[in-house]
Amino acid sequence: ADRWFIIDSTLREGEQFARASFSSDDKIEVAQALDAFGVEFIEVTTPMVNEQAAKDAVRLVNLGLNAKIITHVRCAMEDARRAIDTGVHGLDLLFGTSSYLREFSHGKSIEQIIDQAREVIQYVKSQGVQVRFSAEDTFRSEEEDLLKVYQAVDEIGVNRVGLADTVGVATPRQVYSLVREVRKAVKCDIEFHGHNDTGCAISNAYEAVEAGATHIDTTILGIGERNGITPMGGFLARMFTFDPQGLMDKYNLEMLPQLDNMIARMVGLPIPWNNYLTGEFAYNHKAGMHLKAIYLNPGAYEAIPPEVFGVGRRIQAGSKLTGKHAIA
Amino acid sequence: ADRWFIIDSTLREGEQFARASFSSDDKIEVAQALDAFGVEFIEVTTPMVNEQAAKDAVRLVNLGLNAKIITHVRCAMEDARRAIDTGVHGLDLLFGTSSYLREFSHGKSIEQIIDQAREVIQYVKSQGVQVRFSAEDTFRSEEEDLLKVYQAVDEIGVNRVGLADTVGVATPRQVYSLVREVRKAVKCDIEFHGHNDTGCAISNAYEAVEAGATHIDTTILGIGERNGITPMGGFLARMFTFDPQGLMDKYNLEMLPQLDNMIARMVGLPIPWNNYLTGEFAYNHKAGMHLKAIYLNPGAYEAIPPEVFGVGRRIQAGSKLTGKHAIA
Ligand SMILES: O=C(O)CCC(=O)C(=O)O
Ligand SMILES: O=C(O)CCC(=O)C(=O)O
Ligand SMILES: [Cu+2]
Ligand SMILES: [Cu+2]
Repeated sequence: ADRWFIIDSTLREGEQFARASFSSDDKIEVAQALDAFGVEFIEVTTPMVNEQAAKDAVRLVNLGLNAKIITHVRCAMEDARRAIDTGVHGLDLLFGTSSYLREFSHGKSIEQIIDQAREVIQYVKSQGVQVRFSAEDTFRSEEEDLLKVYQAVDEIGVNRVGLADTVGVATPRQVYSLVREVRKAVKCDIEFHGHNDTGCAISNAYEAVEAGATHIDTTILGIGERNGITPMGGFLARMFTFDPQGLMDKYNLEMLPQLDNMIARMVGLPIPWNNYLTGEFAYNHKAGMHLKAIYLNPGAYEAIPPEVFGVGRRIQAGSKLTGKHAIA
Repeated sequence: ADRWFIIDSTLREGEQFARASFSSDDKIEVAQALDAFGVEFIEVTTPMVNEQAAKDAVRLVNLGLNAKIITHVRCAMEDARRAIDTGVHGLDLLFGTSSYLREFSHGKSIEQIIDQAREVIQYVKSQGVQVRFSAEDTFRSEEEDLLKVYQAVDEIGVNRVGLADTVGVATPRQVYSLVREVRKAVKCDIEFHGHNDTGCAISNAYEAVEAGATHIDTTILGIGERNGITPMGGFLARMFTFDPQGLMDKYNLEMLPQLDNMIARMVGLPIPWNNYLTGEFAYNHKAGMHLKAIYLNPGAYEAIPPEVFGVGRRIQAGSKLTGKHAIA
């Protein structure tokens, strides 16, 4: 798709990271930084968790950022009412459709899911707020069930449907083919949310966009439950190679190190040394054959010019691999 | 493919990592651990870099491991002769076919590349040693050039051809489709080597196998030039979800934490906190809805049972996200 947006979920999925516990002021700092970077949507933790989360949502809305503030709630009237009260611009509704979750979590049938969704969606729309419906654990759900639910909520009038790879099992070609099916089945926008347990969170987000998804969930440094979701930096690295100018027009890419450092500080952990773009060694060149070529043309061994993302290059001369006959 | 093997390149690609500088004894320790784990091939740095590398190769061969020892050299007679002298079981030959490398590196035509490859391959075969030919920067080469070279070396008699995503730009569907083309064009085995600059190294290796690749390059923790290549642990996490029993039969998976810790120690860096399987938080569950389901059935929010890879689970109760109404 030519038209795609980032829903940054550092303040929701990211809060589910083991070491994250954002203060109100942290949340303001994160939201302002994301907004300055150019992110289109900011997803925040449900006001249902406690009074402070509700107050923080109000405070974030009152900042009047360009980015829209969305909260993430269960697909239930109680939650929707509480969320609407905070003044957020959108609600991301979540319901489990997989047999795992239907058995071990809420125990509802597909028809019951649709009925419950109808009531909630119609209510949210009546309040003039945008609404998305997502099927938790999409990739372990029956495709027939999924399409039934997505088509039903599309007709009820959601702005987006969401596909969620909740346990991080989907493969790139699976994501591509399911998003294409959904693209044919609904008129509304399509969101993708992918966990990284098996190392496919960036690829899957990319293939989702290729297949017609319009909204991608990311978090700064990828923080989230377990080892997290699609990291914003890595995802932008991926998208950059296809449309550098488009990406530079959309976002203030040179702010990436600032965002990554901000979250590293808040969670009290370093930026992983193998991180995309901003990791300590992301632009470290060592092998002899590489060094020679890099001097002539950095593009010989770099997919992305580091300066675009505000980082530097390091030519590591003098190692034993740098000799006359050293190889790539 | 049902039949696939790991070529672990921690002692070659991994040596190109900024912080890696393995002593002879380190190399022995790494090779023995990889062999105990069950890796089929171990790739080591070319003896061309210095006398010590040549001696280390001989020492590794003399260990008499089950894993075959392969060295990685430029596709040149001088290098091949030196490598054969060490007694290794195989040679991985590398030649740049992309326009970038042809212009900024060796300056040869496709015909010249094939002629040079013929001499080297015939020599290596005459010594009774297995040989692979790889096209550096495969995914920025012309498909026509590539197929010409791969078909030529297949006819000359290589054991494998290699596809190398040298700068980490390939996408999963690109890898899938090119490997399928190569699969149709040659009779020999196919190897894939992928860098992780844009976050696709695991997905790409997986899609390569799906398309018919038989050999996948990995390193422990993914260490290599820049931010590295397909990490062994992450790749095995990916493969596990499709054939758990097959993977458990092939490898001593519960040794993974030992391998990851060994390399972390040798490079003097921690295992990244977001690492696959062995990262500190890989099995940390925090959101309220998750905790409830995990107690009933861990599979509800886990793609892979942690105990298979010798790691534990952590239920993080008591955070503000754990309340009665907390969401996924
Ligand atoms: O609302 C969504 O689409 C995603 C919810 C979530 O975090 C997940 O299923 O992993
Ligand atoms: O020999 C190969 O296939 C890979 C060489 C290498 O490390 C690369 O091109 O990134
Ligand atoms: Cu999630
Ligand atoms: Cu490499």
